[in-house]
Amino acid sequence: MSSKITPNTVSPPKKVRVGVLGATGTVGQRFVTLLSEHPWFIIEALGASERSKGRKYREAVKWKQTIPLGGLAADLIVKGCTPEEFKTCQLVFSGLDADVAGDIEYAFRAANIPLFSNAKNYRRDPHVPLIVPLVNPSHFSIIPQQQSLHSPLLSKGFIVTNANCSTTGYVIPLAALEKAFGPIESVLVTTMQAISGAGYPGVPSLDILGNVVPYIGGEEEKIEWETLKILGGITDSENETDKNGAPLKTFDMHQAGGRPALRVSASCNRVPVVDGHMECVSLRFHRRPPPSPQQVREALSVFTPEIQSLGCPSSPRKAIEVFEEPDRPQPRLDVKGTHNGAGVSVGRVRQCQVLDIKFVVLSDNVSIGAATSSIINAEYAVLKGIVS
Amino acid sequence: MSSKITPNTVSPPKKVRVGVLGATGTVGQRFVTLLSEHPWFIIEALGASERSKGRKYREAVKWKQTIPLGGLAADLIVKGCTPEEFKTCQLVFSGLDADVAGDIEYAFRAANIPLFSNAKNYRRDPHVPLIVPLVNPSHFSIIPQQQSLHSPLLSKGFIVTNANCSTTGYVIPLAALEKAFGPIESVLVTTMQAISGAGYPGVPSLDILGNVVPYIGGEEEKIEWETLKILGGITDSENETDKNGAPLKTFDMHQAGGRPALRVSASCNRVPVVDGHMECVSLRFHRRPPPSPQQVREALSVFTPEIQSLGCPSSPRKAIEVFEEPDRPQPRLDVKGTHNGAGVSVGRVRQCQVLDIKFVVLSDNVSIGAATSSIINAEYAVLKGIVS
Amino acid sequence: MSSKITPNTVSPPKKVRVGVLGATGTVGQRFVTLLSEHPWFIIEALGASERSKGRKYREAVKWKQTIPLGGLAADLIVKGCTPEEFKTCQLVFSGLDADVAGDIEYAFRAANIPLFSNAKNYRRDPHVPLIVPLVNPSHFSIIPQQQSLHSPLLSKGFIVTNANCSTTGYVIPLAALEKAFGPIESVLVTTMQAISGAGYPGVPSLDILGNVVPYIGGEEEKIEWETLKILGGITDSENETDKNGAPLKTFDMHQAGGRPALRVSASCNRVPVVDGHMECVSLRFHRRPPPSPQQVREALSVFTPEIQSLGCPSSPRKAIEVFEEPDRPQPRLDVKGTHNGAGVSVGRVRQCQVLDIKFVVLSDNVSIGAATSSIINAEYAVLKGIVS
Amino acid sequence: MSSKITPNTVSPPKKVRVGVLGATGTVGQRFVTLLSEHPWFIIEALGASERSKGRKYREAVKWKQTIPLGGLAADLIVKGCTPEEFKTCQLVFSGLDADVAGDIEYAFRAANIPLFSNAKNYRRDPHVPLIVPLVNPSHFSIIPQQQSLHSPLLSKGFIVTNANCSTTGYVIPLAALEKAFGPIESVLVTTMQAISGAGYPGVPSLDILGNVVPYIGGEEEKIEWETLKILGGITDSENETDKNGAPLKTFDMHQAGGRPALRVSASCNRVPVVDGHMECVSLRFHRRPPPSPQQVREALSVFTPEIQSLGCPSSPRKAIEVFEEPDRPQPRLDVKGTHNGAGVSVGRVRQCQVLDIKFVVLSDNVSIGAATSSIINAEYAVLKGIVS
Repeated sequence: MSSKITPNTVSPPKKVRVGVLGATGTVGQRFVTLLSEHPWFIIEALGASERSKGRKYREAVKWKQTIPLGGLAADLIVKGCTPEEFKTCQLVFSGLDADVAGDIEYAFRAANIPLFSNAKNYRRDPHVPLIVPLVNPSHFSIIPQQQSLHSPLLSKGFIVTNANCSTTGYVIPLAALEKAFGPIESVLVTTMQAISGAGYPGVPSLDILGNVVPYIGGEEEKIEWETLKILGGITDSENETDKNGAPLKTFDMHQAGGRPALRVSASCNRVPVVDGHMECVSLRFHRRPPPSPQQVREALSVFTPEIQSLGCPSSPRKAIEVFEEPDRPQPRLDVKGTHNGAGVSVGRVRQCQVLDIKFVVLSDNVSIGAATSSIINAEYAVLKGIVS
Repeated sequence: MSSKITPNTVSPPKKVRVGVLGATGTVGQRFVTLLSEHPWFIIEALGASERSKGRKYREAVKWKQTIPLGGLAADLIVKGCTPEEFKTCQLVFSGLDADVAGDIEYAFRAANIPLFSNAKNYRRDPHVPLIVPLVNPSHFSIIPQQQSLHSPLLSKGFIVTNANCSTTGYVIPLAALEKAFGPIESVLVTTMQAISGAGYPGVPSLDILGNVVPYIGGEEEKIEWETLKILGGITDSENETDKNGAPLKTFDMHQAGGRPALRVSASCNRVPVVDGHMECVSLRFHRRPPPSPQQVREALSVFTPEIQSLGCPSSPRKAIEVFEEPDRPQPRLDVKGTHNGAGVSVGRVRQCQVLDIKFVVLSDNVSIGAATSSIINAEYAVLKGIVS
Repeated sequence: MSSKITPNTVSPPKKVRVGVLGATGTVGQRFVTLLSEHPWFIIEALGASERSKGRKYREAVKWKQTIPLGGLAADLIVKGCTPEEFKTCQLVFSGLDADVAGDIEYAFRAANIPLFSNAKNYRRDPHVPLIVPLVNPSHFSIIPQQQSLHSPLLSKGFIVTNANCSTTGYVIPLAALEKAFGPIESVLVTTMQAISGAGYPGVPSLDILGNVVPYIGGEEEKIEWETLKILGGITDSENETDKNGAPLKTFDMHQAGGRPALRVSASCNRVPVVDGHMECVSLRFHRRPPPSPQQVREALSVFTPEIQSLGCPSSPRKAIEVFEEPDRPQPRLDVKGTHNGAGVSVGRVRQCQVLDIKFVVLSDNVSIGAATSSIINAEYAVLKGIVS
Repeated sequence: MSSKITPNTVSPPKKVRVGVLGATGTVGQRFVTLLSEHPWFIIEALGASERSKGRKYREAVKWKQTIPLGGLAADLIVKGCTPEEFKTCQLVFSGLDADVAGDIEYAFRAANIPLFSNAKNYRRDPHVPLIVPLVNPSHFSIIPQQQSLHSPLLSKGFIVTNANCSTTGYVIPLAALEKAFGPIESVLVTTMQAISGAGYPGVPSLDILGNVVPYIGGEEEKIEWETLKILGGITDSENETDKNGAPLKTFDMHQAGGRPALRVSASCNRVPVVDGHMECVSLRFHRRPPPSPQQVREALSVFTPEIQSLGCPSSPRKAIEVFEEPDRPQPRLDVKGTHNGAGVSVGRVRQCQVLDIKFVVLSDNVSIGAATSSIINAEYAVLKGIVS
């Protein structure tokens, strides 16, 4: 069940003291679960709302994970979400709800604390990278600009966000295909998303038991927008400069650089599945003729993201598992895969009668779709020296 | 709950004696339920396999409907599926399994008995119409040719099929849109289909509870192919003639007549829902500029199939219910609608970033998707004098 | 689907103007659905919280019934829950939440308005009857005392409560058995309760999808206590008198009158079922030898409550449907039964190796378990002249 | 996740070559999963039906486990279920279906191969022990008699069965309580059983999705009967002797030895849960006064079966996990527990108003309820030298 890679070329760092904001929530619990067994990261502080503050974590949390709460975290005293209470942490993860994440995360960055956030608040910020670790960790390159534009200038603090769970799952095979075959022009994606993606209490059972809800508020817009930012590059602005007169870096939203524009159309559905987002994807390549289904299968299967070769300990052994069986992947059987939910599974690669290729992708929305992505992002930042 | 229309211009026919083949199966039970309350049709005979033959229907059947079995049908003695045992029937419905439907249905037609079949066996036959009653009852016009090509020539017998449940549901709004806005060029449809579509015992619970299965054997091909036959016209063959030298009529599969070809791409999924197929549809019109979402909503809402104006008693009062709420329709709340499952529900009509328009359609797969369609087809044939 | 009985001996009353409190909630929606088709009761006023007040009902409500909202109620303007706004109503139904029902219901009674409540607040009041209409409408006899003890004395106002949904379902066969075979000494009941029993949003889907929760707060105590009040009689107090010196009537809680005490032990579970509480019941009679399973089946089957012979229009045609099939009743197939959820279904009557007899009972928790019971109680009160 | 105990006093045995009969079925797949990681047992041979014979296991099996099939077993060639093909195995596990297990298991024993069976066929045999490894491994003492009564006399072959899954789960806390407080007189158990208990394809989804089925064929009789054999002792027969004139040993079915008879009443239900049988138990002790709920909790919590102290590697670290939270255990969260499904979880220990004590117990029906029990039985036999 281990998904560890022992890199040959990178010295494992010393222990890194980390904190978790929003630790009693659904994503926060997942952070605690994963960090409790992490080879580098040591949970130093857990933060939650006023209601939980001052209580032992095991008593403050309504634990909803299938792995029992154990380890040192269980007995930590929950703190408030203020930078002062986390000043011994070298970096902090945020599983905060969007309604409070904006101010709190701003304050942590201002206090010079590197922050890896699962919240949506800063995803659209033109200086904050939106990083799916198996796809675009190169976007960390905008961090110096983010720090230099802050007043006062920041030496260590920054905000990095990871993407929405349904974006994360399907953008990984898209990235693999663009790497192999060049630009994709059009993508139609129809999702069937698990209830755990909505947190707790989340979806009322009367709404979803034996039912499908063909709507998730804001989700389609997120997929359509985030895909452009993640798959796009970073270019120098022609108009804006920083304080030193150097051109400002800008996310080109996948529209610039002479490449054909990418159009994305998403239809999002909630289905009565606990964990695992299924997404039916149809796409059209720019290149004519397009690759065959067999070429697509091979390109997906051999895709090796930078985080794997770099040796991030939470990276999956295989980024994309390609199934040959006609009825796989399925959430109940395959959501964890052989990689503890850190990779994704693709199946049913075949020709599309309208676009070029269609397939289905399954991702573990609470792992690679949430906490695991934040953690790999942090591992990358540590290995690259972005966090010291 | 009544969906009856009392036509002003058509005299209600006398009672019509009907039979049901495959009466103990899932579709057969639905036939019995609907026919037990039908204003014209009287169940005269029920046929099933050898195992059930000779027993009272109530004892032979493992009743799985939520409406209790009652009425005269309950005490009928189940017969074998031979034409001799149904010779007093004026028409027969078939809910037979595909593995036996081929020979039995052929024998019934040869015995000059009109047969309305839910089985797939004759759907691709070039002389058998594939009729979704809210869409293409005009295809009954091929029946005389079907009869004249039979040897010996048939005076009354014929086979009419209705479409696969997932095809039926989504082809109704397609027909409404082609009627209003002209040809559609491309359709991408992703289905989330209920377990009742697979019959009984059908899908093992271990495969579908809390799960999604991204595959239904043969289903995508059926949707892609049946759509072309249903939405296409009937033209005179240039090469073939019948015995009298008249040109043979041919289904043009939506490719002929100068109109642009229609391309259909389907992705089919099974979800843990009891009744109600949900389908996410994206499409591109030939016409430029395409209609707006609001125009599409209106065209769907006012769509009135011929069977309604003709006064078929099982036709829905409204063919297509258009929802404005963002999260509707949903199978659990809306599958029966105000029309006892004889119409379909459409929601979320909006622009598609890749094609022109996208929406979701919900249909009751055991009603309009199966037995109800056969029954409306038979009503139409009675009103038009095709069955005497 | 009709469950109407046309009584021969009772003149149907003129139209009765009624109101509904808590009309936008789950139980309130069920009241509106049932009253919209009621032969006597006309919805005159709908009350809800401040948030909904002043809006059209169709806009204020998040409709969650499978029967579409229609009729006159849809366009009523929602009122606040004050007696002044309901003074034209001859009686009022309450689907209020317990946290507000106490004060509001008190005010309505004080304003001389008869109130039929589904809330739990007054169930334990020693002068308020707790009436399961198929079991103990005779407890209406305490109403005069309730009115005379109020200050100022009430001429028309009173409060009648119906029981908790899980109590209601299983107490009906208990009453039938006590009527036929005399006192029951012990009952062990294990429930498997539907999610609709918890209202909306109610049970989070993450708690119940593919799961069983072996606990429902306060439910076991309610069953154990309510059973005693419902099955017990009303006796004259030896110690207390009313203002006229007459002995106060007291609920004897099934303990008095020389009969053996009744002991009830309940274990309550939530299961992933939408509608329909299943309850496994084992019981011991006082009488030795106890009746046989066949005698029990017959006694349940012939049970005819007073409301049926009296002609309450919402009473079921059959109070208890007894199934012979070994695997019935089941919620999905049998919850509505032939009686639109106004009766209950019993199956698997057999000997118990520890007590005497065991069986399973299924009841429609949103019908006879909630709104339907209140409505039948009101019908009874109208027919008996308790409401004028 | 490890449930290994490293015994101090027992030398780990050498590698033991084992076979699995019925290897492609649900229980067989579980055997293969567990044995693939077993510290002692090496899968030497896999047997299945003619249809699978001669194919690679990975191709013959329709793998339905959440842990991917891997290891050496995947490439073994499936054999037929004849003793000749398993003669190199030191012991064999049987996951055979009951309709074929009788003859095949008999043949294996006759061929002098020790056989640990999950099938029901020999459970009632008066010389075959029915062993729940956490409860009555002492019943292995009847093996010499089983061997000596066989003709020809057996030196190594025998059959040991484990119990039905629903019996196994609840009999463990019963054994713990009898050990602490003496005989139990009466037990009432109501089960809510997972679909995986019925194998594959097992329960049709149309029967169980959003439903409860209050019946599992033969299950109640199994629980009522097996409990007596498991909890009873082995005594010398007064009437029968073996060939040497020594008294035959007999299972006393919990009725003999001066102890009060045990009466068991079971009600079995199928619920829409994938894995994990929940059972609501009420019981009465012989001892007066009975122990308090707190005493019961403690007795359950400290219960240490012989297999733990002996050092069976698959034994749970804790036999019975006692929950204090009012709403636990729950199948989805707790079925695997900290012991990989080898122990059971008990919650809601409280007084019963009719008997003495009631509680709920959750067991992993595919682990301790099936394959894990067979494996621990085999480990015990190896450690005790019963298998050489």
